[in-house]
Amino acid sequence: MTMTVFLGVAALAHAANTNETDAAQRAYAAVDPFIGTGGEGHTFPGAVVPFGMVQLSPDTQLKSRKEGYGWAAGYRYDDNTIFGFSHTHFSGTGHSDLGDVLTMPISGAVRLEPGDSAHPGSGYHSQFSHSDEKAEPGYYAVTLTDYDIRAELTAGDRIGVHRYTFPQGKPAHVLVDLRPSMYDYPGKVSWSRLRLRADGTLTGFRETRGWAPDRQLYFAMRFSQPASGHALHNIEGEIPYKGFAGPADKDPRQRAQVEGRAIVGVVDFPATTRELIVKVSISPVSEDSAIANLDSDMPGWDFDVVRSAARDAWMRALGAFDVDAPAPMRKSFYTAVYHTMMAPSLFMDADGRYRGPDNAVHHADGFRNYSTFSLWDTYRALHPLLTIVQPEQRTNDIVNSLLASRRYSPNGILPVWAFHGLETWCMIGYHAVPVIADAFMKGIRGYDTNAALDAMVASASYAPYGGLDGYMKLGYVPIDQEGEAASKTLEYAFDDWTIAQVATVLGKQDIAKAFDKRAGNWRNAYDAKTGFMRARKTDGLFREPFDPSASGYGSDYTEGNAWQYSWYVPQDTAGLIKAHGGDTKLVAMLDRVFDAKIDPKLFAHMEDITGLIGWYAHGNEPSHHVAYLYAYAGQPWRTQERLKQIMDTQYAPRTDGLAGNDDLGQMSAWFVFTAMGFYPVAPASNEYVIGRPFVDRMTLNLPNGKHFTISTDGLDATHPYIGAVTLNGKPLLRSVILHEQIMAGGKLHFSMQAQPNKSWATGNSQRPYSMSTL
Amino acid sequence: MTMTVFLGVAALAHAANTNETDAAQRAYAAVDPFIGTGGEGHTFPGAVVPFGMVQLSPDTQLKSRKEGYGWAAGYRYDDNTIFGFSHTHFSGTGHSDLGDVLTMPISGAVRLEPGDSAHPGSGYHSQFSHSDEKAEPGYYAVTLTDYDIRAELTAGDRIGVHRYTFPQGKPAHVLVDLRPSMYDYPGKVSWSRLRLRADGTLTGFRETRGWAPDRQLYFAMRFSQPASGHALHNIEGEIPYKGFAGPADKDPRQRAQVEGRAIVGVVDFPATTRELIVKVSISPVSEDSAIANLDSDMPGWDFDVVRSAARDAWMRALGAFDVDAPAPMRKSFYTAVYHTMMAPSLFMDADGRYRGPDNAVHHADGFRNYSTFSLWDTYRALHPLLTIVQPEQRTNDIVNSLLASRRYSPNGILPVWAFHGLETWCMIGYHAVPVIADAFMKGIRGYDTNAALDAMVASASYAPYGGLDGYMKLGYVPIDQEGEAASKTLEYAFDDWTIAQVATVLGKQDIAKAFDKRAGNWRNAYDAKTGFMRARKTDGLFREPFDPSASGYGSDYTEGNAWQYSWYVPQDTAGLIKAHGGDTKLVAMLDRVFDAKIDPKLFAHMEDITGLIGWYAHGNEPSHHVAYLYAYAGQPWRTQERLKQIMDTQYAPRTDGLAGNDDLGQMSAWFVFTAMGFYPVAPASNEYVIGRPFVDRMTLNLPNGKHFTISTDGLDATHPYIGAVTLNGKPLLRSVILHEQIMAGGKLHFSMQAQPNKSWATGNSQRPYSMSTL
Repeated sequence: MTMTVFLGVAALAHAANTNETDAAQRAYAAVDPFIGTGGEGHTFPGAVVPFGMVQLSPDTQLKSRKEGYGWAAGYRYDDNTIFGFSHTHFSGTGHSDLGDVLTMPISGAVRLEPGDSAHPGSGYHSQFSHSDEKAEPGYYAVTLTDYDIRAELTAGDRIGVHRYTFPQGKPAHVLVDLRPSMYDYPGKVSWSRLRLRADGTLTGFRETRGWAPDRQLYFAMRFSQPASGHALHNIEGEIPYKGFAGPADKDPRQRAQVEGRAIVGVVDFPATTRELIVKVSISPVSEDSAIANLDSDMPGWDFDVVRSAARDAWMRALGAFDVDAPAPMRKSFYTAVYHTMMAPSLFMDADGRYRGPDNAVHHADGFRNYSTFSLWDTYRALHPLLTIVQPEQRTNDIVNSLLASRRYSPNGILPVWAFHGLETWCMIGYHAVPVIADAFMKGIRGYDTNAALDAMVASASYAPYGGLDGYMKLGYVPIDQEGEAASKTLEYAFDDWTIAQVATVLGKQDIAKAFDKRAGNWRNAYDAKTGFMRARKTDGLFREPFDPSASGYGSDYTEGNAWQYSWYVPQDTAGLIKAHGGDTKLVAMLDRVFDAKIDPKLFAHMEDITGLIGWYAHGNEPSHHVAYLYAYAGQPWRTQERLKQIMDTQYAPRTDGLAGNDDLGQMSAWFVFTAMGFYPVAPASNEYVIGRPFVDRMTLNLPNGKHFTISTDGLDATHPYIGAVTLNGKPLLRSVILHEQIMAGGKLHFSMQAQPNKSWATGNSQRPYSMSTL
Repeated sequence: MTMTVFLGVAALAHAANTNETDAAQRAYAAVDPFIGTGGEGHTFPGAVVPFGMVQLSPDTQLKSRKEGYGWAAGYRYDDNTIFGFSHTHFSGTGHSDLGDVLTMPISGAVRLEPGDSAHPGSGYHSQFSHSDEKAEPGYYAVTLTDYDIRAELTAGDRIGVHRYTFPQGKPAHVLVDLRPSMYDYPGKVSWSRLRLRADGTLTGFRETRGWAPDRQLYFAMRFSQPASGHALHNIEGEIPYKGFAGPADKDPRQRAQVEGRAIVGVVDFPATTRELIVKVSISPVSEDSAIANLDSDMPGWDFDVVRSAARDAWMRALGAFDVDAPAPMRKSFYTAVYHTMMAPSLFMDADGRYRGPDNAVHHADGFRNYSTFSLWDTYRALHPLLTIVQPEQRTNDIVNSLLASRRYSPNGILPVWAFHGLETWCMIGYHAVPVIADAFMKGIRGYDTNAALDAMVASASYAPYGGLDGYMKLGYVPIDQEGEAASKTLEYAFDDWTIAQVATVLGKQDIAKAFDKRAGNWRNAYDAKTGFMRARKTDGLFREPFDPSASGYGSDYTEGNAWQYSWYVPQDTAGLIKAHGGDTKLVAMLDRVFDAKIDPKLFAHMEDITGLIGWYAHGNEPSHHVAYLYAYAGQPWRTQERLKQIMDTQYAPRTDGLAGNDDLGQMSAWFVFTAMGFYPVAPASNEYVIGRPFVDRMTLNLPNGKHFTISTDGLDATHPYIGAVTLNGKPLLRSVILHEQIMAGGKLHFSMQAQPNKSWATGNSQRPYSMSTL
């Protein structure tokens, strides 16, 4: 219990004063893990600790890759069948994988196939009812009605713990199916193994070729009671070599081990069994290391101790926010906070070993190693949020994890979209760069800063990646050499600007100069004639024909079109405005984005583009900063209007309350920032752009012990506009709050009113950071 | 050069006196690695050091599993095409695997497919001529005529070293194909990876599901010159996940890494390249560990230093024998000795780590770990031979390796047929037991002897294995529960007897008693009515109908029939004789075995049954002790006759000079013992049965510094019979020499004559060990 007890004690120490403890308890109670499990959210309701390696959750469908998009997190609220509880899940992805070590309790007869959810009894699945279901951070419970089994789940850093209550008089079983993955059944498993050890520990591994190639996942599972029997099945059939197979190859009940590509194990318990605790650990290293994780994270058998430690950890994390708001807003807010603390996920055994992007085992020296980096999404708001509300060490660990990944990268670069240590090459950009730069610029520097700059420069200079060869030669990614070239040019240019910021601080003037120049490359994508960002060919001409509504893999853009991508110049909004011919013209273009009447069928082929308001697609990240751009154009009241429009239509405290994939917390981080009244449009600028608050009052209990209070007067549906803002009692004239102002503690007060204040923060010097005006 | 230089120095130190050095040089010169590369031998001609982890050898065909039996070692002398040089090979197996990291030098245009040997130029293969070929222990050279490349190979413990001499004026390339295995192209690879590191080191791994499941083999390769380019190909095509693949997925020349199931890499060198050294290491642990092996085993680039160290190691090993005999016999003899020192093979990285039967990484503490245990074959004569001529530490290391394998076995038992740490479940019995028992009884005890007995008992008591459940209950393996039951009952009974021997010495009387009883279980297989060993059913009745000529997987026997298997009672030959009704009757049965006229087509379905003399099949191990049984029946002159018959027909110093698969040296060990004049019919008895010598004179330079001389007078083709034998000048009246008598040093002299001496060693007390007479 070392680790979990530690967290518990720390939580108590931190929340020393009663107010904070109360706030944390109220925060915990406000979270509804079911939000996002319907609709487009792709979240899961299962048990996880903050940033934990295990995400233990029910899977309600085992779909093929083609059909499975909606089941990226394994669970959909509209299902009524559970196939089992697997130990790894992504929270809110659009693509998927994981779903490791699917475990299902069974009473009575055992079926080895999952069966069809449309046909109850056709497999080992069970029906369930939401009325029997309960989910809170770190805990999930459900009744499997086909089996009359109550199943409860909780989790620690590297463990998932199941408590099954079996009906009396029927043989009890625990089935482990190594075949399923999210979302592919079967098909991703290249090899797997189950072994029942002499001491009753079930261990194994599986190797999958899914989203990440050749992922190795080891596990160990122990039961609180001795088994009465077992059977280890190779459903595909043994693959003997010229007739040789293991001992007892005819009888799964005598096997001590089975391996192959379609492995299912069943452990039997007497019919007298009532309560059974099953504790499961995972490891990227080995079965032995999984056993060590199990012993380290849960030496005993007390489910409630683990559950309580998970609750403490969540209370500590959620307790950073003390929010006064109507109940629906508090539910949305705290659930959003909850969803921002799932990833990056711990990826390190108890002894510090983990697997790197070279698929080799390494040791984390002096840091905790994290993986599951959905960086294209999370560099925008999730990582900036963590720099405020999580202990500084969390961000240092994340940066050190990114640098370690680069050290062991076969390509010598930072991760792009990595999980379980492995690179998937998903999405675009080198957005580990702004994550590091944002931390660095905020003074979070618990890592080798020169190595960090090296890694950033190397990642921005690796010619074979994503058209960088052409980008470095031409100043833009040429569309005839590389797809989605307009998006890439824009995002590279922003990332480059963040490198220049860091290099300047470190006194590396050559690097700063080179990357400052590259930061201006967005201009090479700008087509003055149409006002859109577009892709050029190697010959310098824009690709024709041009359709600003075209999106998709063949287009100039990544998961978007010209209407969505043409505003991505966070490092030089002044330049963007100037290019468009001034504030009014940019605002007019932005209004065309939001107010367009479009046919949603336009995006039928683009499953990630959801949450539409005109062309604005809140369900996907390229739109996330767009509403804030009005403030840069000197019209913050327009930002305030748009934010209300988005908050009213794109989020709700319902299972289908997320308008798009939560993307490992980026959708939720947008919500948290926006509800607080500010947003990090340009990470590494140390500025947050003032939007408008959506909570009546809140206190950020900062990890440095200080408190930053946000308060309002007049806030209600009829008072959507900011009249005035004060910081620590003095008027705040810019539509900006600085990171250091927040971290110093203090009071930010918003006076809300019915009509827009068209004179606040309209001047050039009152706008947020904007390169060309500096 | 640490290790190899060390061996060289040790060799010189050992062979301190000039005579021994001369003898070792002559021994080295007498070896012809081509013996057995044609016909049924399945040996390979490439470079290996004694018991080395790397066996670097040309592969002359890449066959499918169905067709490839003859290419189990990769090379057949009747081929004229080389596809490349791979780094791991079995010497003389009937089934196969390995063939790792196939490497081919190319001048000029590169083809990525191996092509068809029937069509020169159809792939990367090249023609070659035996006239350009040279092979000696630790060295192999050939000219690849299609490319005009001279290729030379040598090896160290964990390294293979290639020296390629390229023609002038053509681009030079080194191709690495990770697809092929012995004997399967492609098909066994479940995943593989090639990575070109920034320092020019090529590393990678492959994972195969072949004879052993899920075998992981890592490697590292360095070149003596900088590469001018490279291309890493995934022949199967990238397997992107929803469109995501690595950087430069379109251009293999820009890839730093490629992974998949069909990986081929090409490293380019300038057309000015003449000589290129390629050094390659393998590791069961990781790519980093392979690099460490490379640095440890060959820090520099001097091919000749490695070659010379390999030669020294072989001279030291071969120099244990100083043989006077006609040149053809010396060639056969020393080549046989050479073939007995390939396996068990070192299986441990420079830092002591290896992979065990649980596929996990372990560390060898206090011993060198070996694998490639063809125990059904090698417990008979190979391991006993090593107890005489190799340093005692070798056998201790082998026993410790077996015990470590048991410690990490998922089933808790000793290996059956293992390679690269993994269990294949090939063949029958638990013959690690007699290997350990033989060592123990000979006083070789550098391991935990109680753990050894535990392991032996556990392996003999593991119910799920090979019908042991029924065997333990019934005293025989019931054929209606388990195939090949007669063979299993017989071999289990012998193994059991060796356990009883060890238990007696260790004072474990209960174990001794139990296993002594089990040693008599051969009687349950004996059918007095037919005189054959047969399989009984659970009901106690022999299975009917019975055909003593029937063999094969459905039969009562393993790779044999009743004629071949009915004499396997080495622990109780007296009992066998008595069961048959006396010496004369047994001898008559044995004569029926040898003198039968049989249709060889009877064994067309049994590829392992070769080397027929009547029913006697010298090409397979169940026959190996049979000619010596005449001596147990008091007719040693009949043994002498049969041995001449076998030696004359089953061995020859030609490429097709082995009548059967060499089986990791067992065929050769039979030859070495028989040529010396004695043979270990019953390992763990400490007795060698006197046959008759086939060399004029020889000295065993024992590792304890003593010398044991075997001399003859009158030996020639017309004097095949022993007239008298003296040991240290005194008449030897028993047809037995004891292990301790050999190890004490001394002189064994045979007087040969034209007619049999029918009075020598005929009495009961003059016969070899035989339980019922004790």
